[in-house]
Amino acid sequence: MSSTYGKIFKISTFGESHGKAIGVIVDGCPAGVEFDENFIQNELDRRKPGQSRITTQRKESDEFQVLSGVFEGKTTGTPIAMVIPNEDQRSKDYSHIATQFRPSHADYTYTAKYGNRDYRGGGRSSARETAARVAAGALAKTLLSTNNITIQAYVSQVGKLKLDKQYWELDLSKTDDNAVRCPDEEMAQKMFDYIDETRKKGDSIGGIITCVIKGVPVGWGEPVFDKLHAELGKAMLGINAVKGFEYGSGFEGIELYGSEHNDEFYIGEDGKVHTKTNLSGGIQGGISNGEDIYFKVAFKPVATIMQDQESVNAEGEKVIVSGKGRHDPCVLPRAVPIVEAMAALVLADFSLRAKSNKV
Amino acid sequence: MSSTYGKIFKISTFGESHGKAIGVIVDGCPAGVEFDENFIQNELDRRKPGQSRITTQRKESDEFQVLSGVFEGKTTGTPIAMVIPNEDQRSKDYSHIATQFRPSHADYTYTAKYGNRDYRGGGRSSARETAARVAAGALAKTLLSTNNITIQAYVSQVGKLKLDKQYWELDLSKTDDNAVRCPDEEMAQKMFDYIDETRKKGDSIGGIITCVIKGVPVGWGEPVFDKLHAELGKAMLGINAVKGFEYGSGFEGIELYGSEHNDEFYIGEDGKVHTKTNLSGGIQGGISNGEDIYFKVAFKPVATIMQDQESVNAEGEKVIVSGKGRHDPCVLPRAVPIVEAMAALVLADFSLRAKSNKV
Amino acid sequence: MSSTYGKIFKISTFGESHGKAIGVIVDGCPAGVEFDENFIQNELDRRKPGQSRITTQRKESDEFQVLSGVFEGKTTGTPIAMVIPNEDQRSKDYSHIATQFRPSHADYTYTAKYGNRDYRGGGRSSARETAARVAAGALAKTLLSTNNITIQAYVSQVGKLKLDKQYWELDLSKTDDNAVRCPDEEMAQKMFDYIDETRKKGDSIGGIITCVIKGVPVGWGEPVFDKLHAELGKAMLGINAVKGFEYGSGFEGIELYGSEHNDEFYIGEDGKVHTKTNLSGGIQGGISNGEDIYFKVAFKPVATIMQDQESVNAEGEKVIVSGKGRHDPCVLPRAVPIVEAMAALVLADFSLRAKSNKV
Amino acid sequence: MSSTYGKIFKISTFGESHGKAIGVIVDGCPAGVEFDENFIQNELDRRKPGQSRITTQRKESDEFQVLSGVFEGKTTGTPIAMVIPNEDQRSKDYSHIATQFRPSHADYTYTAKYGNRDYRGGGRSSARETAARVAAGALAKTLLSTNNITIQAYVSQVGKLKLDKQYWELDLSKTDDNAVRCPDEEMAQKMFDYIDETRKKGDSIGGIITCVIKGVPVGWGEPVFDKLHAELGKAMLGINAVKGFEYGSGFEGIELYGSEHNDEFYIGEDGKVHTKTNLSGGIQGGISNGEDIYFKVAFKPVATIMQDQESVNAEGEKVIVSGKGRHDPCVLPRAVPIVEAMAALVLADFSLRAKSNKV
Repeated sequence: MSSTYGKIFKISTFGESHGKAIGVIVDGCPAGVEFDENFIQNELDRRKPGQSRITTQRKESDEFQVLSGVFEGKTTGTPIAMVIPNEDQRSKDYSHIATQFRPSHADYTYTAKYGNRDYRGGGRSSARETAARVAAGALAKTLLSTNNITIQAYVSQVGKLKLDKQYWELDLSKTDDNAVRCPDEEMAQKMFDYIDETRKKGDSIGGIITCVIKGVPVGWGEPVFDKLHAELGKAMLGINAVKGFEYGSGFEGIELYGSEHNDEFYIGEDGKVHTKTNLSGGIQGGISNGEDIYFKVAFKPVATIMQDQESVNAEGEKVIVSGKGRHDPCVLPRAVPIVEAMAALVLADFSLRAKSNKV
Repeated sequence: MSSTYGKIFKISTFGESHGKAIGVIVDGCPAGVEFDENFIQNELDRRKPGQSRITTQRKESDEFQVLSGVFEGKTTGTPIAMVIPNEDQRSKDYSHIATQFRPSHADYTYTAKYGNRDYRGGGRSSARETAARVAAGALAKTLLSTNNITIQAYVSQVGKLKLDKQYWELDLSKTDDNAVRCPDEEMAQKMFDYIDETRKKGDSIGGIITCVIKGVPVGWGEPVFDKLHAELGKAMLGINAVKGFEYGSGFEGIELYGSEHNDEFYIGEDGKVHTKTNLSGGIQGGISNGEDIYFKVAFKPVATIMQDQESVNAEGEKVIVSGKGRHDPCVLPRAVPIVEAMAALVLADFSLRAKSNKV
Repeated sequence: MSSTYGKIFKISTFGESHGKAIGVIVDGCPAGVEFDENFIQNELDRRKPGQSRITTQRKESDEFQVLSGVFEGKTTGTPIAMVIPNEDQRSKDYSHIATQFRPSHADYTYTAKYGNRDYRGGGRSSARETAARVAAGALAKTLLSTNNITIQAYVSQVGKLKLDKQYWELDLSKTDDNAVRCPDEEMAQKMFDYIDETRKKGDSIGGIITCVIKGVPVGWGEPVFDKLHAELGKAMLGINAVKGFEYGSGFEGIELYGSEHNDEFYIGEDGKVHTKTNLSGGIQGGISNGEDIYFKVAFKPVATIMQDQESVNAEGEKVIVSGKGRHDPCVLPRAVPIVEAMAALVLADFSLRAKSNKV
Repeated sequence: MSSTYGKIFKISTFGESHGKAIGVIVDGCPAGVEFDENFIQNELDRRKPGQSRITTQRKESDEFQVLSGVFEGKTTGTPIAMVIPNEDQRSKDYSHIATQFRPSHADYTYTAKYGNRDYRGGGRSSARETAARVAAGALAKTLLSTNNITIQAYVSQVGKLKLDKQYWELDLSKTDDNAVRCPDEEMAQKMFDYIDETRKKGDSIGGIITCVIKGVPVGWGEPVFDKLHAELGKAMLGINAVKGFEYGSGFEGIELYGSEHNDEFYIGEDGKVHTKTNLSGGIQGGISNGEDIYFKVAFKPVATIMQDQESVNAEGEKVIVSGKGRHDPCVLPRAVPIVEAMAALVLADFSLRAKSNKV
């Protein structure tokens, strides 16, 4: 029951890395949302493998089909099923790991939990599953765009290479201009070279994705457990390889005094309430305050490396796990649309929940 | 619908800072769990105000009453209602903020979302609500203790004062020996002095709580959205003033190569599968692997300060918000049992969910 | 986790027959709903024991207290806790059933399921729990009244005494004029006498409650599993002693041909779409069509009787269960407000769900 | 969000009558359940159209494909997606109803609720969707069979033709021996002739399906809202054309005295607690007591008839709806596997929920 996300705008994903297909059902999308197949496909293309030499060379066209819930170009209010067939299923690449537990992968925990597992390419634990989230997230983005909400993520750090600019100093429209998805051209090139070098060593490296959301009206999110940032945090931590989440001032904010950290209110030129600073990250008491929402997501170096590693197998014997197959030396460029998709799903759900705030 | 947490071990909290009472219903606790009133009261006492001069001087005995679900000292499988009356309701202290929006509080967002709000002491957005979570969490701890699971949190940073020791270098049984709840005596004293100094300035300061969970069996947590660390993250981010969450290697891990970060498996002296290192933080693919689970939670400096701040009121007029009433200069000492309680609630729920893993 | 009902307008009840209190949390009620304490108390009074000599003589004033979620006479959007203390806890009356399984009660199934149970007065399985539903339902009624929706239930059959009039032939405002809650005076008297006679024999009798809902706009309810009538059915079957549910033409409709059963559409004088007949019971495809919604609920004779019955105890020994204590010879008069409350809760939830139908 | 059913064993169906495909995701099935494709296909065949001349002549092979969640013949604990392509999509048959509201269909309510609708063949409101439930239900049956639980439904009434035998007087293994699915051969023939006659008149007729469940252990089901019979009722009322539900003594039981209706306990030859009679229908206080569970489901005559009917269209004009296309004169024979499937889904879910009853 863990493959379902959302209270009203609800998605259920399915599929294994090397099964017949992956996909998603969206149950709870309002009727009348434009279903823009090109836009959805474009979002999937941003995530798909083989985009450059610093991403895995697995061949997947990732062309999706919609099976239900759409009529004459619009959603009908009924469940929308989207399916992405798996094409490149070279499962022979993975047969050696049928019983071996790859370090820092989910092989051991799945085996212990379920007894059996689809070991081909990581099965359900493969990040391939996130394509389904991107498809659903694209629809959520369309729904949000009717509110003029934009969600823009970008790579702000790779290993020790850290972009020392705030999001408002950057031209986020340039994010997709390079293979790394860092909007600063110079830093993007450095990151590219670093990732490529790491790839050549058969190793992997982590980094940070920053995400900025503009246009969210005041009042989305809920008190107590379902705070807007708590749901964003859960959604981000649910992405493969994520180890940390912070919003607004985040971990750095702890060193400030309250008198430095508080965001004073004033009435802006638009006649609305605004804050002079935005260390709150657009969220106060778990509820959006109309300012920009921004947060950071930390990704570990992916576990698949092209090097020999010590491990054990299901029989408890010592084995050497050799690096084979194809892999991403750094997942961050492809994770940018995933971060955006999950943020969109969180917000789409809250947009519908907010409809019951008042009589 | 946001005051409910959990899928099977489910809690619903209620209550405002200055209403008649706060409380919680636990719906889904198995029958036969020992209901140890003293233990629950003790956990509440760890969180209650007035413990030392570095916590708020609000007077609340926080004595709870159980209304249902317990018979002859054990849970019966039916909902357990626990209520904590509010005693010290000096709401006059708060009348000045009926229409003013305190900076970095939820006054503005609640007003915008709901139209009206109980402004006395922050109402529902007050951290007083967390007492209800601590009561429910104490019961969850009891349930987990039948599995020999322990949950220990401690203050590891206050402002810039950072404890540079790993959790395994500390004697966590000493955490409650001082008012700060830092198990390192020397650092605890420094932190105490720093918080007290901050208090005298009428200011506030943030920090970090580290939490360590031992004894969780392999196989708890779920793939995809409800990963163990995703639920822990959501639970922590749902605590008032939290700005960030990381587990295992966290934000620091991003600078390592995969070959450095991966945790190699071996067979331990107990004949079980273990990892040589534990940068995974006890969780792989969202599922516990039997190693220690550990994570960090970042708290901002609390918004209530005893200084004048600029702001606006509900009429859109410029106002000066003056610091009045009682407040915590640093919430971390009192937040330790809250972090533990929320971790216990997450794990109790997963312990029940894990019962359906296999036929 | 079974004491919670609703997706958005969500209630959680708690409490045992002879514990300290029963009560309910409403989580998800919009802000700004008038909180009419008198109306809620009045609904509780309609359900409370001791109303006449044909209801149980247990003494309970059933005065409720609201602990949270209400400020200056209106709901605030946060959880509303309502508590009803138990006053008349003569648990000595029930001590004899500590280990005996009363026929057609839940004593045996609770014991088998949970291991231990609060045997005093049926504990959680007592219909006393329904008072909490009535309190929550009263609030739901208030919310619905802003849509001019009315919900009126009445007793239409007791034993073999069947009211042979359709609801539109009756003056439903007279329902509460007599102790039976049958709007037909003559039949009400017959029913009263019959119930009283049954009481004198120490026996019990069942019957039917009919419920009529007017003013529901077109479009409430959901396709597939959460059809409006499916939720109504679940809500009614969740009331103690209910054995059957039918709506519209119900069980009788099966003998008609489709050509007789179909409700033809026409444009009414109000310019809206209407149906000439209403065998559909105001619901088509699970969704309200604007016509009156009506349904019937069958109640068995209550299990508590003042006669000796054979049974077994927890040790597997043959025992005689003697009728003691106080009981209702016929629950229907007191069940009328419960049926209305549950219908109100179902509709309140759907009213909020319907807000997400379209963009 | 209404196409999802279940708390732990959770299904989400999708698909329209004349879209590309229908299907279902099962999220929450334990790992290690045998995935018997033949059995699932066989259940689908029991429901599929064209079985005899008294069912619709629509041509659908209803061959399903499994896309995920199964490995080496067993479930893996991850979501199981099953898809059934739509083959016979003669949507031209339906173009005439693009704007017309067919009497007692969902055309009007869907249009009002969603604004737009897929009008081809009823779209989402078509009973074709139930094939997805049957596929999921077959898997649930397999899970239950490991507990030796059997679920057997049969047609017990068609129009006024009523089988006057109790289920224990019948040989339920004969149910599938005839096209009507009535286990009494003689009555089956009468029903067949009656349905065929109705078909020739271009009309339709309703009836009753009785369902018997054997082998459910004591303790399944929950107190209060999620009573076992309340969930069964909701599940049955969610099936297209269902108007009523009763279990155990049902509507007839209301005429009995409590002293006649109560089921006295005794210790059976197997040493277990049993009841002498079973008017409780195997459920007491919402929880199974180990006796046979049995219930009845009332189906109205289906709305599609081959006769002219008056109605209106979306423009509010008077129109004549002509009977065209293919239809079932009586849905009951094909509804038998649907009733069984929904019962299986309810019980599978409760079987998993029951795992958390006690520590």
